[in-house]
Amino acid sequence: MGEISTSHGKIFTPVFMPVGTQGTVKAMTHEMLLQMNVEIILGNTYHLYLRPGHKLIESLGGLHRFISWDRPILTDSGGFQVYSMSDLNKVTEEGVFFRSHIDGSAHLFTPESSIEVQTALGSDIIMAFDECTPYPAARQQVAESADLTARWAKRSKDAHLENSDSALFGIIQGGIYQDLRAKSAGDICSIGFDGYALGGLSVGEPKDQMFEIVEYTVPMIPEDKPHYLMGAGMPADIIEAVSMGIDMFDCVLPTRNARNGYAFTHNGKIIIKHAKYKEDALPVDPECGCYTCRNFSRAYLRHLFMAGEITAAVLLTIHNLHFYLDLLNRIRQSLKSGRFCDWMAMNLPRYKEAYP
Amino acid sequence: MGEISTSHGKIFTPVFMPVGTQGTVKAMTHEMLLQMNVEIILGNTYHLYLRPGHKLIESLGGLHRFISWDRPILTDSGGFQVYSMSDLNKVTEEGVFFRSHIDGSAHLFTPESSIEVQTALGSDIIMAFDECTPYPAARQQVAESADLTARWAKRSKDAHLENSDSALFGIIQGGIYQDLRAKSAGDICSIGFDGYALGGLSVGEPKDQMFEIVEYTVPMIPEDKPHYLMGAGMPADIIEAVSMGIDMFDCVLPTRNARNGYAFTHNGKIIIKHAKYKEDALPVDPECGCYTCRNFSRAYLRHLFMAGEITAAVLLTIHNLHFYLDLLNRIRQSLKSGRFCDWMAMNLPRYKEAYP
Repeated sequence: MGEISTSHGKIFTPVFMPVGTQGTVKAMTHEMLLQMNVEIILGNTYHLYLRPGHKLIESLGGLHRFISWDRPILTDSGGFQVYSMSDLNKVTEEGVFFRSHIDGSAHLFTPESSIEVQTALGSDIIMAFDECTPYPAARQQVAESADLTARWAKRSKDAHLENSDSALFGIIQGGIYQDLRAKSAGDICSIGFDGYALGGLSVGEPKDQMFEIVEYTVPMIPEDKPHYLMGAGMPADIIEAVSMGIDMFDCVLPTRNARNGYAFTHNGKIIIKHAKYKEDALPVDPECGCYTCRNFSRAYLRHLFMAGEITAAVLLTIHNLHFYLDLLNRIRQSLKSGRFCDWMAMNLPRYKEAYP
Repeated sequence: MGEISTSHGKIFTPVFMPVGTQGTVKAMTHEMLLQMNVEIILGNTYHLYLRPGHKLIESLGGLHRFISWDRPILTDSGGFQVYSMSDLNKVTEEGVFFRSHIDGSAHLFTPESSIEVQTALGSDIIMAFDECTPYPAARQQVAESADLTARWAKRSKDAHLENSDSALFGIIQGGIYQDLRAKSAGDICSIGFDGYALGGLSVGEPKDQMFEIVEYTVPMIPEDKPHYLMGAGMPADIIEAVSMGIDMFDCVLPTRNARNGYAFTHNGKIIIKHAKYKEDALPVDPECGCYTCRNFSRAYLRHLFMAGEITAAVLLTIHNLHFYLDLLNRIRQSLKSGRFCDWMAMNLPRYKEAYP
């Protein structure tokens, strides 16, 4: 339980950051995000660099002004997307050559260019450029990759302007190998960053391995700096990760699942197209206070979804984001009152069962 | 300039009714509609009958409750959609046989069933069941069709419950033939309705013919009842039609065009994907006070549209609906102050030029 100060205000942690890949949280207006008290959103450097371009955004006053969002923004480094989304890529010491998934054009991302792009965007929290190793990957490959990430982290730090308003976070790699994580944590922490992320997790490895690595690595990170577990986002994962000292989360699950008709509730998921909701007059979650649950029935949302209405995506996204914000709020409250362990013992099993 | 009282409140005329075909104005939440002060929306009986079904909606408390909208709703008769959307249809004295555009299932709409469906929905303004003749159509065909519509209008009136909360409007047909319009107006008005619509216009006929018919027919309608021109919706059309005595309009243009990246402004259309807006920091319409124009640039909206973001549809729909509501507001203000003719002389030419 803590807070992070940025040039666009404070964030209270542990915090969930909705993903706004292309300059909007999908299907949302910024007014909706403000109404549900979203404190920080994440923007994807890879996407914004390719379209509409960081120079365009900079010339129009930066990302905050472009998207009309005056609360904090964290941008990722582009590293993960370069591997997962672009058509071709080649990694060298210099950086990563890749082709755009939009038009096939050729590009090079380096630690310096990633920081330059994120600075042009005006991000509040900038991520160092890293290589995200896949799972499974051979030990030797992971070791070399983590070393490259460490050299890139140093170059990222050097490229980050001293007088910048933005914070710079380093990313610890090392796959599922404890000793490689320890080495990476040592390398990254010795460079010195404003916060530290665990990268290369939630990429397909078994959950126990992920938590083994989180539990093992967190104690190696300076306690007074934010700890960010990138990409993890099932409800139980968040709770467990908080218990291990993680402060920040991002995940596309609430927004993507909403568009697919999957609603989160504290009592399990609702697949809205199921016939059993056809005449169901209850809201998605009778205990939820979101706009969608205050106004609409499952039957109505099912109808909108089956009819292909955009409004279905809008209303379910509002609900799912509210669910995540509410979950983090419950966690923060229990931390504040010193009862987190009790709360977790009581609640973790049902989230695990509901969202395996 | 007047008002219409319904069981869900008053409407100030002339009024524009956003189209909410399937139980939502596409891409909107009801909160957005309330914020822009939409007074009445239109629901499509054909669509709601097929999906989710009027009985389901009735069992969940009626359309207002189902969609969480407590202002007036007008439902069409289903007549127009049966001709334009369903796969097959056969018209008899009894009614229209058609196949669903969703699953091919066979259905029969009659004046009695149309009123029954609209009553089950809980519509505030119910439309009599009519046959909409296409353009062009031979005189003899139009004459027979208008006579059938008159017989169906009588059956619609008989089927409408005496103690109903809902108003029942009749529809005048007769294509582009003045004498057939006169006959139809006489037939429909002698049955006696709470309001009168001109149907079978805006179906492909030249604009002057449409206005010739509107100008010719309106004086035959009782002056103290609302006059509704169905489906007409270009800005200049609305102004001209108001000058001829029309009170009510509906049209899918603002919502459909928004989803296609076409924004209305008082100075002409904006096709948001055009390259000239790529770096344009101005709002869609610098004079507009809508949420979208208060917060976002053309460059941002263009980016969202090019990136395929749902938020583009949401923001452009808000703007386009606001434009229509604002246009009607300007018309009502000029009527109120007795300066409509001056206002029209000054403004009609530019709307005609901007939206030919």
